[in-house]
Amino acid sequence: MKDSRLKVWGYDWVPDFAKGQVRDFRVRWALIEASFAYEVDHVTMGTQGKPEHLARQPFGQVPVLEVDGTPMFESGAIVWRIAEQSDVLLPPGLDRYAALSWVFAALNSVEPLTGVVGTVQTFVEDREAAERVAPTLRAMAGKKLKRLAGALGDKDYLLGGTFCVADLMMASVLHGLDGLALIEDFPSLVAYRDRCLARPAYQKAMTDQIAEIESNAANYAK
Amino acid sequence: MKDSRLKVWGYDWVPDFAKGQVRDFRVRWALIEASFAYEVDHVTMGTQGKPEHLARQPFGQVPVLEVDGTPMFESGAIVWRIAEQSDVLLPPGLDRYAALSWVFAALNSVEPLTGVVGTVQTFVEDREAAERVAPTLRAMAGKKLKRLAGALGDKDYLLGGTFCVADLMMASVLHGLDGLALIEDFPSLVAYRDRCLARPAYQKAMTDQIAEIESNAANYAK
Ligand SMILES: N[C@@H](CCC(=O)N[C@@H](CS)C(=O)NCC(=O)O)C(=O)O
Ligand SMILES: N[C@@H](CCC(=O)N[C@@H](CS)C(=O)NCC(=O)O)C(=O)O
Repeated sequence: MKDSRLKVWGYDWVPDFAKGQVRDFRVRWALIEASFAYEVDHVTMGTQGKPEHLARQPFGQVPVLEVDGTPMFESGAIVWRIAEQSDVLLPPGLDRYAALSWVFAALNSVEPLTGVVGTVQTFVEDREAAERVAPTLRAMAGKKLKRLAGALGDKDYLLGGTFCVADLMMASVLHGLDGLALIEDFPSLVAYRDRCLARPAYQKAMTDQIAEIESNAANYAK
Repeated sequence: MKDSRLKVWGYDWVPDFAKGQVRDFRVRWALIEASFAYEVDHVTMGTQGKPEHLARQPFGQVPVLEVDGTPMFESGAIVWRIAEQSDVLLPPGLDRYAALSWVFAALNSVEPLTGVVGTVQTFVEDREAAERVAPTLRAMAGKKLKRLAGALGDKDYLLGGTFCVADLMMASVLHGLDGLALIEDFPSLVAYRDRCLARPAYQKAMTDQIAEIESNAANYAK
Protein backbone atom coordinates (compact mmCIF):
# COMPACT_ATOMS: atom_id res chain seq x y z
CA MET A 1 0.00 0.00 0.00
CA LYS A 2 2.89 2.30 0.84
CA ASP A 3 4.08 1.98 -2.74
CA SER A 4 0.60 2.07 -4.28
CA ARG A 5 -0.90 5.10 -5.92
CA LEU A 6 -3.50 6.29 -3.44
CA LYS A 7 -6.34 8.69 -4.15
CA VAL A 8 -8.95 9.89 -1.65
CA TRP A 9 -12.32 11.11 -2.93
CA GLY A 10 -14.13 13.86 -1.05
CA TYR A 11 -16.70 16.46 -2.12
CA ASP A 12 -15.79 19.66 -3.93
CA TRP A 13 -18.27 21.52 -1.77
CA VAL A 14 -20.77 20.98 1.06
CA PRO A 15 -23.12 23.29 2.99
CA ASP A 16 -21.68 24.93 6.09
CA PHE A 17 -23.14 22.43 8.58
CA ALA A 18 -21.18 19.60 6.92
CA LYS A 19 -17.87 21.39 6.52
CA GLY A 20 -15.21 19.56 8.54
CA GLN A 21 -17.60 16.62 8.98
CA VAL A 22 -17.27 14.94 5.59
CA ARG A 23 -16.01 11.46 6.40
CA ASP A 24 -13.07 11.59 4.02
CA PHE A 25 -11.24 13.32 6.91
CA ARG A 26 -11.05 9.91 8.59
CA VAL A 27 -9.21 8.43 5.64
CA ARG A 28 -6.89 11.42 5.25
CA TRP A 29 -6.14 11.30 8.97
CA ALA A 30 -5.25 7.61 8.78
CA LEU A 31 -3.07 8.09 5.70
CA ILE A 32 -1.17 10.94 7.30
CA GLU A 33 -0.62 8.96 10.52
CA ALA A 34 0.69 6.09 8.38
CA SER A 35 2.91 8.44 6.32
CA PHE A 36 1.38 7.20 3.05
CA ALA A 37 1.40 9.77 0.25
CA TYR A 38 -1.95 10.34 -1.46
CA GLU A 39 -3.74 12.57 -3.90
CA VAL A 40 -7.21 14.00 -3.43
CA ASP A 41 -10.02 14.17 -5.94
CA HIS A 42 -13.51 15.59 -5.57
CA VAL A 43 -16.99 14.43 -6.47
CA THR A 44 -18.78 17.47 -7.86
CA MET A 45 -21.92 18.37 -5.90
CA GLY A 46 -24.93 16.98 -7.74
CA THR A 47 -23.09 14.11 -9.41
CA GLN A 48 -23.09 11.71 -6.43
CA GLY A 49 -25.83 9.57 -7.97
CA LYS A 50 -24.24 9.28 -11.42
CA PRO A 51 -23.26 5.74 -12.52
CA GLU A 52 -19.62 6.83 -12.63
CA HIS A 53 -19.66 7.56 -8.91
CA LEU A 54 -21.93 4.66 -7.93
CA ALA A 55 -19.30 2.37 -9.45
CA ARG A 56 -16.89 3.73 -6.85
CA GLN A 57 -19.29 4.00 -3.93
CA PRO A 58 -22.55 2.04 -4.21
CA PHE A 59 -24.48 4.42 -1.92
CA GLY A 60 -23.35 7.50 -3.83
CA GLN A 61 -21.34 8.82 -0.92
CA VAL A 62 -17.79 9.60 0.09
CA PRO A 63 -15.14 8.65 1.13
CA VAL A 64 -13.61 6.38 -1.47
CA LEU A 65 -9.97 5.33 -1.50
CA GLU A 66 -8.52 4.29 -4.83
CA VAL A 67 -5.57 1.92 -4.51
CA ASP A 68 -3.75 1.70 -7.83
CA GLY A 69 -6.99 2.63 -9.56
CA THR A 70 -9.24 0.17 -7.68
CA PRO A 71 -11.84 1.95 -5.56
CA MET A 72 -12.72 0.90 -2.04
CA PHE A 73 -15.58 2.27 0.09
CA GLU A 74 -16.67 2.63 3.74
CA SER A 75 -14.49 4.71 5.99
CA GLY A 76 -14.28 1.84 8.51
CA ALA A 77 -12.99 -0.66 5.99
CA ILE A 78 -10.57 1.79 4.40
CA VAL A 79 -9.12 2.92 7.73
CA TRP A 80 -8.73 -0.68 8.90
CA ARG A 81 -6.91 -1.56 5.69
CA ILE A 82 -4.51 1.33 6.21
CA ALA A 83 -4.05 0.39 9.87
CA GLU A 84 -3.07 -3.17 8.96
CA GLN A 85 -0.02 -1.68 7.27
CA SER A 86 0.90 0.98 9.81
CA ASP A 87 2.89 0.70 13.03
CA VAL A 88 1.38 3.97 14.19
CA LEU A 89 -2.23 2.83 13.81
CA LEU A 90 -1.58 -0.74 14.97
CA PRO A 91 1.56 -0.56 17.11
CA PRO A 92 3.44 -3.86 17.36
CA GLY A 93 2.40 -5.79 20.46
CA LEU A 94 -1.06 -4.24 20.55
CA ASP A 95 -4.04 -6.62 20.63
CA ARG A 96 -5.17 -6.37 17.01
CA TYR A 97 -8.60 -7.85 17.75
CA ALA A 98 -9.25 -5.49 20.63
CA ALA A 99 -8.52 -2.63 18.23
CA LEU A 100 -10.89 -4.13 15.66
CA SER A 101 -13.61 -4.47 18.29
CA TRP A 102 -13.33 -0.80 19.12
CA VAL A 103 -13.39 0.27 15.48
CA PHE A 104 -16.68 -1.59 15.07
CA ALA A 105 -17.90 -0.25 18.41
CA ALA A 106 -17.35 3.30 17.19
CA LEU A 107 -19.24 2.66 13.97
CA ASN A 108 -21.93 0.21 15.01
CA SER A 109 -22.54 0.86 18.72
CA VAL A 110 -21.79 4.55 19.27
CA GLU A 111 -22.38 6.26 15.90
CA PRO A 112 -25.83 4.77 15.14
CA LEU A 113 -27.29 5.81 18.48
CA THR A 114 -25.66 9.22 18.70
CA GLY A 115 -26.02 9.90 14.98
CA VAL A 116 -29.78 9.49 15.05
CA VAL A 117 -30.01 12.43 17.45
CA GLY A 118 -28.41 14.57 14.74
CA THR A 119 -30.48 12.97 11.98
CA VAL A 120 -33.76 13.78 13.68
CA GLN A 121 -32.53 17.27 14.57
CA THR A 122 -31.32 18.05 11.05
CA PHE A 123 -33.63 16.22 8.66
CA VAL A 124 -37.11 15.99 10.22
CA GLU A 125 -39.10 19.01 9.09
CA ASP A 126 -41.88 18.54 11.63
CA ARG A 127 -39.90 20.30 14.35
CA GLU A 128 -42.45 19.83 17.09
CA ALA A 129 -42.61 16.06 16.63
CA ALA A 130 -38.81 15.91 16.34
CA GLU A 131 -38.47 17.65 19.68
CA ARG A 132 -40.93 15.28 21.29
CA VAL A 133 -39.00 12.16 20.24
CA ALA A 134 -35.59 13.71 20.99
CA PRO A 135 -35.50 12.97 24.76
CA THR A 136 -35.80 9.19 24.24
CA LEU A 137 -33.11 9.21 21.58
CA ARG A 138 -30.83 11.43 23.65
CA ALA A 139 -31.25 9.13 26.64
CA MET A 140 -30.27 6.10 24.55
CA ALA A 141 -27.22 7.93 23.18
CA GLY A 142 -26.29 9.07 26.68
CA LYS A 143 -26.39 5.49 27.94
CA LYS A 144 -23.86 4.47 25.28
CA LEU A 145 -21.59 7.39 26.04
CA LYS A 146 -21.73 6.59 29.74
CA ARG A 147 -20.58 3.03 29.02
CA LEU A 148 -17.87 4.38 26.74
CA ALA A 149 -16.64 6.69 29.51
CA GLY A 150 -16.69 3.70 31.86
CA ALA A 151 -14.59 1.61 29.48
CA LEU A 152 -12.11 4.44 28.96
CA GLY A 153 -11.76 4.94 32.71
CA ASP A 154 -8.70 7.01 33.46
CA LYS A 155 -6.70 5.68 30.54
CA ASP A 156 -5.47 8.10 27.89
CA TYR A 157 -6.59 5.86 25.02
CA LEU A 158 -9.05 2.99 24.61
CA LEU A 159 -6.38 0.30 24.66
CA GLY A 160 -4.19 1.92 27.29
CA GLY A 161 -1.37 4.41 27.01
CA THR A 162 -0.93 4.33 23.24
CA PHE A 163 -2.99 5.92 20.49
CA CYS A 164 -4.16 3.49 17.80
CA VAL A 165 -6.72 3.05 15.03
CA ALA A 166 -9.46 2.46 17.62
CA ASP A 167 -8.94 5.98 18.92
CA LEU A 168 -8.82 7.48 15.44
CA MET A 169 -12.24 6.02 14.71
CA MET A 170 -13.83 6.69 18.08
CA ALA A 171 -12.59 10.29 18.14
CA SER A 172 -13.89 10.74 14.58
CA VAL A 173 -17.32 9.63 15.72
CA LEU A 174 -17.18 11.88 18.78
CA HIS A 175 -16.14 14.80 16.55
CA GLY A 176 -19.36 14.14 14.61
CA LEU A 177 -21.36 15.01 17.74
CA ASP A 178 -20.28 18.66 17.71
CA GLY A 179 -23.23 20.87 18.39
CA LEU A 180 -25.47 18.12 19.80
CA ALA A 181 -24.62 18.70 23.48
CA LEU A 182 -24.28 14.98 24.14
CA ILE A 183 -20.65 14.36 24.99
CA GLU A 184 -20.43 17.44 27.22
CA ASP A 185 -21.98 15.45 30.08
CA PHE A 186 -18.83 13.31 30.12
CA PRO A 187 -15.71 15.40 30.81
CA SER A 188 -13.39 12.42 30.40
CA LEU A 189 -14.76 11.83 26.89
CA VAL A 190 -14.33 15.49 25.99
CA ALA A 191 -10.71 15.31 27.16
CA TYR A 192 -10.19 12.04 25.29
CA ARG A 193 -11.65 13.43 22.07
CA ASP A 194 -9.55 16.57 22.37
CA ARG A 195 -6.41 14.52 23.06
CA CYS A 196 -6.96 12.56 19.86
CA LEU A 197 -7.96 15.56 17.75
CA ALA A 198 -4.87 17.47 18.87
CA ARG A 199 -2.75 15.14 16.76
CA PRO A 200 -1.05 16.94 13.85
CA ALA A 201 -2.38 14.34 11.40
CA TYR A 202 -5.97 15.14 12.33
CA GLN A 203 -5.26 18.86 12.17
CA LYS A 204 -3.86 18.58 8.67
CA ALA A 205 -6.72 16.37 7.46
CA MET A 206 -9.26 18.85 8.75
CA THR A 207 -7.49 21.95 7.46
CA ASP A 208 -7.11 20.40 4.02
CA GLN A 209 -10.75 19.35 3.76
CA ILE A 210 -12.02 22.75 4.79
CA ALA A 211 -9.60 24.66 2.54
CA GLU A 212 -10.60 22.60 -0.51
CA ILE A 213 -14.30 23.10 0.15
CA GLU A 214 -13.87 26.82 0.72
CA SER A 215 -11.83 27.21 -2.44
CA ASN A 216 -14.88 26.04 -4.40
CA ALA A 217 -17.46 28.04 -2.49
CA ALA A 218 -17.68 30.75 -5.15
CA ASN A 219 -19.02 28.17 -7.65
CA TYR A 220 -21.95 27.46 -5.36
CA ALA A 221 -22.75 30.97 -4.10
CA LYS A 222 -26.42 31.76 -4.65
CA MET B 1 -8.78 -20.31 16.05
CA LYS B 2 -9.91 -23.72 14.79
CA ASP B 3 -7.98 -25.29 17.65
CA SER B 4 -8.94 -22.67 20.22
CA ARG B 5 -11.60 -23.13 22.83
CA LEU B 6 -14.48 -20.94 21.62
CA LYS B 7 -17.41 -19.78 23.68
CA VAL B 8 -20.29 -17.60 22.45
CA TRP B 9 -22.25 -15.54 24.96
CA GLY B 10 -25.94 -14.89 24.36
CA TYR B 11 -28.84 -14.13 26.69
CA ASP B 12 -30.65 -16.77 28.71
CA TRP B 13 -33.95 -15.09 27.89
CA VAL B 14 -35.37 -12.12 25.96
CA PRO B 15 -38.90 -10.79 25.41
CA ASP B 16 -40.75 -12.18 22.40
CA PHE B 17 -39.97 -9.24 20.08
CA ALA B 18 -36.23 -9.93 20.40
CA LYS B 19 -36.35 -13.73 20.07
CA GLY B 20 -34.37 -14.73 16.97
CA GLN B 21 -32.94 -11.21 16.77
CA VAL B 22 -30.26 -11.37 19.45
CA ARG B 23 -27.03 -10.67 17.61
CA ASP B 24 -25.21 -13.73 18.88
CA PHE B 25 -26.89 -15.53 15.97
CA ARG B 26 -24.45 -13.75 13.66
CA VAL B 27 -21.49 -15.23 15.50
CA ARG B 28 -23.01 -18.71 15.71
CA TRP B 29 -23.82 -18.55 12.00
CA ALA B 30 -20.23 -17.62 11.14
CA LEU B 31 -18.79 -20.33 13.39
CA ILE B 32 -21.02 -23.00 11.86
CA GLU B 33 -20.13 -21.88 8.30
CA ALA B 34 -16.46 -22.08 9.28
CA SER B 35 -16.93 -25.51 10.94
CA PHE B 36 -15.41 -24.28 14.21
CA ALA B 37 -16.70 -26.06 17.30
CA TYR B 38 -17.96 -23.79 20.08
CA GLU B 39 -19.81 -23.79 23.37
CA VAL B 40 -22.55 -21.38 24.35
CA ASP B 41 -23.00 -19.56 27.63
CA HIS B 42 -25.72 -17.14 28.69
CA VAL B 43 -25.81 -13.80 30.41
CA THR B 44 -28.69 -13.96 32.89
CA MET B 45 -31.32 -11.27 32.28
CA GLY B 46 -30.73 -8.41 34.67
CA THR B 47 -26.99 -8.97 35.05
CA GLN B 48 -25.90 -7.23 31.82
CA GLY B 49 -24.63 -4.18 33.70
CA LYS B 50 -22.63 -6.10 36.31
CA PRO B 51 -18.84 -5.51 36.33
CA GLU B 52 -18.32 -9.16 35.45
CA HIS B 53 -20.16 -8.73 32.16
CA LEU B 54 -18.88 -5.22 31.42
CA ALA B 55 -15.38 -6.71 31.52
CA ARG B 56 -16.45 -8.92 28.60
CA GLN B 57 -18.58 -6.39 26.74
CA PRO B 58 -18.08 -2.71 27.67
CA PHE B 59 -21.63 -1.74 26.63
CA GLY B 60 -23.21 -4.54 28.66
CA GLN B 61 -24.50 -6.29 25.57
CA VAL B 62 -24.09 -9.52 23.63
CA PRO B 63 -22.56 -11.13 21.64
CA VAL B 64 -19.16 -11.90 23.10
CA LEU B 65 -16.82 -14.54 21.73
CA GLU B 66 -14.28 -15.97 24.13
CA VAL B 67 -11.18 -17.33 22.42
CA ASP B 68 -9.20 -19.46 24.86
CA GLY B 69 -10.72 -17.44 27.67
CA THR B 70 -10.10 -13.98 26.20
CA PRO B 71 -13.35 -12.17 25.43
CA MET B 72 -13.94 -10.20 22.25
CA PHE B 73 -16.93 -7.97 21.48
CA GLU B 74 -18.85 -6.45 18.52
CA SER B 75 -20.50 -8.88 16.14
CA GLY B 76 -18.77 -7.20 13.17
CA ALA B 77 -15.28 -7.64 14.59
CA ILE B 78 -15.93 -11.20 15.75
CA VAL B 79 -17.39 -12.30 12.45
CA TRP B 80 -14.52 -10.70 10.52
CA ARG B 81 -12.00 -12.50 12.71
CA ILE B 82 -13.71 -15.81 12.04
CA ALA B 83 -13.90 -15.04 8.32
CA GLU B 84 -10.17 -14.39 8.13
CA GLN B 85 -9.70 -18.06 8.99
CA SER B 86 -12.45 -19.59 6.89
CA ASP B 87 -12.46 -20.52 3.21
CA VAL B 88 -16.25 -20.53 3.26
CA LEU B 89 -16.57 -16.96 4.56
CA LEU B 90 -13.63 -15.61 2.56
CA PRO B 91 -13.23 -17.98 -0.39
CA PRO B 92 -9.74 -17.99 -1.90
CA GLY B 93 -9.49 -15.56 -4.80
CA LEU B 94 -12.22 -13.30 -3.47
CA ASP B 95 -11.38 -9.60 -3.04
CA ARG B 96 -10.85 -9.47 0.73
CA TYR B 97 -11.18 -5.69 0.85
CA ALA B 98 -14.40 -5.65 -1.13
CA ALA B 99 -15.79 -8.11 1.42
CA LEU B 100 -14.60 -5.88 4.27
CA SER B 101 -16.24 -2.85 2.65
CA TRP B 102 -19.57 -4.65 2.52
CA VAL B 103 -19.32 -5.84 6.13
CA PHE B 104 -18.89 -2.22 7.20
CA ALA B 105 -21.61 -1.12 4.77
CA ALA B 106 -24.04 -3.52 6.43
CA LEU B 107 -23.19 -2.22 9.90
CA ASN B 108 -22.47 1.45 9.30
CA SER B 109 -24.49 2.41 6.21
CA VAL B 110 -27.55 0.13 6.20
CA GLU B 111 -28.16 -0.84 9.85
CA PRO B 112 -27.98 2.67 11.37
CA LEU B 113 -30.55 4.11 8.96
CA THR B 114 -32.89 1.15 8.93
CA GLY B 115 -32.42 0.41 12.61
CA VAL B 116 -33.58 3.85 13.67
CA VAL B 117 -36.98 3.15 12.12
CA GLY B 118 -37.30 0.22 14.53
CA THR B 119 -35.86 2.21 17.44
CA VAL B 120 -38.40 4.99 17.07
CA GLN B 121 -41.21 2.47 16.55
CA THR B 122 -40.26 0.37 19.59
CA PHE B 123 -38.83 2.73 22.18
CA VAL B 124 -40.50 6.14 21.82
CA GLU B 125 -43.52 6.22 24.12
CA ASP B 126 -45.02 9.34 22.57
CA ARG B 127 -46.63 7.34 19.76
CA GLU B 128 -48.14 10.31 17.95
CA ALA B 129 -44.79 12.12 17.69
CA ALA B 130 -43.08 8.87 16.70
CA GLU B 131 -45.51 8.43 13.84
CA ARG B 132 -44.96 11.98 12.65
CA VAL B 133 -41.18 11.57 12.40
CA ALA B 134 -41.40 8.06 10.91
CA PRO B 135 -41.95 9.08 7.25
CA THR B 136 -38.66 11.01 7.07
CA LEU B 137 -36.75 8.14 8.67
CA ARG B 138 -38.44 5.56 6.45
CA ALA B 139 -37.59 7.59 3.36
CA MET B 140 -33.92 7.75 4.38
CA ALA B 141 -33.85 4.01 5.02
CA GLY B 142 -35.59 3.37 1.71
CA LYS B 143 -32.97 5.38 -0.15
CA LYS B 144 -30.22 3.16 1.30
CA LEU B 145 -32.10 -0.02 0.44
CA LYS B 146 -32.65 1.24 -3.09
CA ARG B 147 -28.91 1.75 -3.51
CA LEU B 148 -28.26 -1.66 -2.01
CA ALA B 149 -30.66 -3.24 -4.51
CA GLY B 150 -28.88 -1.33 -7.26
CA ALA B 151 -25.49 -2.63 -6.18
CA LEU B 152 -26.76 -6.20 -5.93
CA GLY B 153 -28.27 -5.97 -9.40
CA ASP B 154 -29.09 -9.44 -10.67
CA LYS B 155 -26.22 -11.11 -8.87
CA ASP B 156 -26.95 -13.84 -6.34
CA TYR B 157 -24.54 -12.39 -3.79
CA LEU B 158 -22.92 -9.02 -3.17
CA LEU B 159 -19.57 -10.04 -4.62
CA GLY B 160 -20.95 -12.15 -7.45
CA GLY B 161 -21.88 -15.81 -7.61
CA THR B 162 -20.40 -16.90 -4.28
CA PHE B 163 -21.69 -16.45 -0.74
CA CYS B 164 -19.19 -14.82 1.62
CA VAL B 165 -18.93 -12.97 4.94
CA ALA B 166 -20.35 -9.81 3.31
CA ASP B 167 -23.60 -11.64 2.64
CA LEU B 168 -23.70 -13.15 6.12
CA MET B 169 -23.56 -9.68 7.62
CA MET B 170 -25.87 -7.95 5.15
CA ALA B 171 -28.49 -10.70 5.41
CA SER B 172 -28.22 -10.51 9.21
CA VAL B 173 -29.00 -6.81 9.05
CA LEU B 174 -31.88 -7.37 6.62
CA HIS B 175 -33.25 -10.08 8.94
CA GLY B 176 -33.32 -7.40 11.62
CA LEU B 177 -35.88 -5.46 9.56
CA ASP B 178 -38.58 -8.10 9.97
CA GLY B 179 -41.88 -6.45 10.73
CA LEU B 180 -40.84 -2.96 9.61
CA ALA B 181 -42.19 -3.22 6.03
CA LEU B 182 -39.06 -1.62 4.58
CA ILE B 183 -37.37 -4.29 2.49
CA GLU B 184 -40.65 -5.51 0.98
CA ASP B 185 -40.49 -2.66 -1.57
CA PHE B 186 -37.41 -4.35 -3.06
CA PRO B 187 -38.21 -7.89 -4.26
CA SER B 188 -34.60 -8.56 -5.25
CA LEU B 189 -33.49 -7.81 -1.68
CA VAL B 190 -36.18 -10.06 -0.25
CA ALA B 191 -34.99 -12.86 -2.54
CA TYR B 192 -31.36 -12.15 -1.63
CA ARG B 193 -32.08 -12.19 2.10
CA ASP B 194 -34.06 -15.42 1.78
CA ARG B 195 -31.29 -17.01 -0.30
CA CYS B 196 -28.77 -16.26 2.46
CA LEU B 197 -31.06 -17.24 5.32
CA ALA B 198 -31.85 -20.57 3.68
CA ARG B 199 -28.33 -21.73 4.47
CA PRO B 200 -28.25 -24.61 6.96
CA ALA B 201 -25.74 -22.75 9.14
CA TYR B 202 -28.15 -19.83 9.61
CA GLN B 203 -31.02 -22.21 10.27
CA LYS B 204 -29.09 -24.02 12.98
CA ALA B 205 -27.91 -20.75 14.59
CA MET B 206 -31.48 -19.48 14.71
CA THR B 207 -33.02 -22.71 15.93
CA ASP B 208 -30.43 -23.01 18.70
CA GLN B 209 -30.88 -19.43 19.91
CA ILE B 210 -34.65 -19.74 20.03
CA ALA B 211 -34.60 -23.15 21.72
CA GLU B 212 -32.24 -21.95 24.45
CA ILE B 213 -34.34 -18.87 25.14
CA GLU B 214 -37.57 -20.88 25.22
CA SER B 215 -36.06 -23.43 27.55
CA ASN B 216 -35.62 -20.66 30.12
CA ALA B 217 -38.99 -18.99 29.58
CA ALA B 218 -40.55 -20.61 32.66
CA ASN B 219 -38.06 -18.74 34.89
CA TYR B 220 -39.35 -15.43 33.58
CA ALA B 221 -43.09 -16.14 33.37
CA LYS B 222 -45.01 -13.44 35.21
N1 LIG C 1 -20.77 4.48 6.31
C1 LIG C 1 -20.23 5.38 5.32
C2 LIG C 1 -20.97 6.69 5.43
C3 LIG C 1 -20.54 7.66 4.39
C4 LIG C 1 -21.30 8.98 4.49
O1 LIG C 1 -22.26 9.11 5.30
N2 LIG C 1 -20.91 9.96 3.67
C5 LIG C 1 -21.54 11.24 3.66
C6 LIG C 1 -20.54 12.34 3.86
S1 LIG C 1 -19.88 12.28 5.47
C7 LIG C 1 -22.16 11.50 2.30
O2 LIG C 1 -21.56 11.22 1.28
N3 LIG C 1 -23.37 12.09 2.31
C8 LIG C 1 -24.06 12.53 1.14
C9 LIG C 1 -25.17 11.62 0.73
O3 LIG C 1 -25.54 10.71 1.46
O4 LIG C 1 -25.73 11.86 -0.36
C10 LIG C 1 -18.74 5.57 5.58
O5 LIG C 1 -18.36 5.62 6.75
O6 LIG C 1 -17.97 5.65 4.60
N1 LIG D 1 -22.87 -3.31 17.82
C1 LIG D 1 -23.12 -4.39 18.73
C2 LIG D 1 -24.57 -4.35 19.14
C3 LIG D 1 -24.91 -5.39 20.17
C4 LIG D 1 -26.38 -5.32 20.58
O1 LIG D 1 -27.13 -4.42 20.17
N2 LIG D 1 -26.79 -6.29 21.40
C5 LIG D 1 -28.15 -6.34 21.89
C6 LIG D 1 -28.76 -7.69 21.58
S1 LIG D 1 -28.99 -7.91 19.86
C7 LIG D 1 -28.19 -6.20 23.38
O2 LIG D 1 -27.36 -6.79 24.08
N3 LIG D 1 -29.17 -5.44 23.89
C8 LIG D 1 -29.43 -5.29 25.27
C9 LIG D 1 -28.96 -3.96 25.83
O3 LIG D 1 -28.56 -3.09 25.07
O4 LIG D 1 -29.05 -3.83 27.07
C10 LIG D 1 -22.78 -5.72 18.07
O5 LIG D 1 -23.04 -5.83 16.85
O6 LIG D 1 -22.20 -6.60 18.72
